[in-house]
Amino acid sequence: MRILIIGATGTLGQPVAQQLGARHEIVAASRSRAALPVDLSQPASLQQLFAKVGEVDAIVSVAGSARMRPLAQLSDADFQFGLENKLMGQVNVIRYGLPHVRHGGSITVTSGVLSHRPMPGSAAISLVNSGLEGFARAAALEAPQGVRVNVVSPPWATETLQAYKLNLPGGRPAAEIASLYVQAVEGHATGSVIGFPE
Amino acid sequence: MRILIIGATGTLGQPVAQQLGARHEIVAASRSRAALPVDLSQPASLQQLFAKVGEVDAIVSVAGSARMRPLAQLSDADFQFGLENKLMGQVNVIRYGLPHVRHGGSITVTSGVLSHRPMPGSAAISLVNSGLEGFARAAALEAPQGVRVNVVSPPWATETLQAYKLNLPGGRPAAEIASLYVQAVEGHATGSVIGFPE
Repeated sequence: MRILIIGATGTLGQPVAQQLGARHEIVAASRSRAALPVDLSQPASLQQLFAKVGEVDAIVSVAGSARMRPLAQLSDADFQFGLENKLMGQVNVIRYGLPHVRHGGSITVTSGVLSHRPMPGSAAISLVNSGLEGFARAAALEAPQGVRVNVVSPPWATETLQAYKLNLPGGRPAAEIASLYVQAVEGHATGSVIGFPE
Repeated sequence: MRILIIGATGTLGQPVAQQLGARHEIVAASRSRAALPVDLSQPASLQQLFAKVGEVDAIVSVAGSARMRPLAQLSDADFQFGLENKLMGQVNVIRYGLPHVRHGGSITVTSGVLSHRPMPGSAAISLVNSGLEGFARAAALEAPQGVRVNVVSPPWATETLQAYKLNLPGGRPAAEIASLYVQAVEGHATGSVIGFPE
């Protein structure tokens, strides 16, 4: 398969690219460090990326930011940031990406455990993650025949917890989490939120 | 209790106001037909409403619009409409409303069955409904002590199905659905998505 990975240089993106790359051709895109640059929050940037890359068998987005901040301190701009970036950015990966995916292929985007297991400070991120899951479940119903759409809901990567000195339960190594994306790309699910059993 | 109902004149809002009004004082707001006008999509309009109404024991939002349209026809503007109106409008009901709710009180907003049971054409609505549920689950963790936050996820009202000549399963009379809001206001749940068992 020819697989476009958006966010290929991130904590999760790297092992995803490595594991899928063992069997498939990877086209790597990211905000700044991959061969192909893309700004998820800019629809025109995504459109340019898809035009440049052409047809693929799978698109995987392991990208998108939203603001972690106490509810009382979250500003209108903080919400707007997450809506434009991690939410609509990935919604647009699906909307704009679908015409570029070959029959039998798939699009996989990324939400996260805060969707259903919130914590203080996560309100804007929980919104974005849940919203993306709702969109993907629906979009899968209208994808072209033979093209699957899924969301991976990763737990915290232990690498991220360590980097931010967070003491939270349920973390897993990024290399383990990457298997969820392999499952999404190589499996048969559609309209699914793919995570580890709780 | 003194209860502010936003969307008090709608298909669901009317029986909600009637049932809660049997035991409580209702302050009715809606876009155009109630005593207090409010435009959910305008943060300033919401702020003015809360300033005018003052302290309440509960806020119930039975309001908000988003666009039903085939995925391939949903425009950027269609998504933006739902994000500003039903999603951020009700997120702001919670954000701006919390300081006006007395100890022991609650805020209840409205998502809908398309959050988890999408249909072709529902992608923008499913996004909005799911996003609101994720936000409310998280916001409940950071509400002031003794103030509850919930989402009611109503099924289709049979009145709505009839009005739009939709033939879909699972519809219930609006008066029956209104009981979910009574449960949210008079019960003890917080951080919950309240719907009928499936």
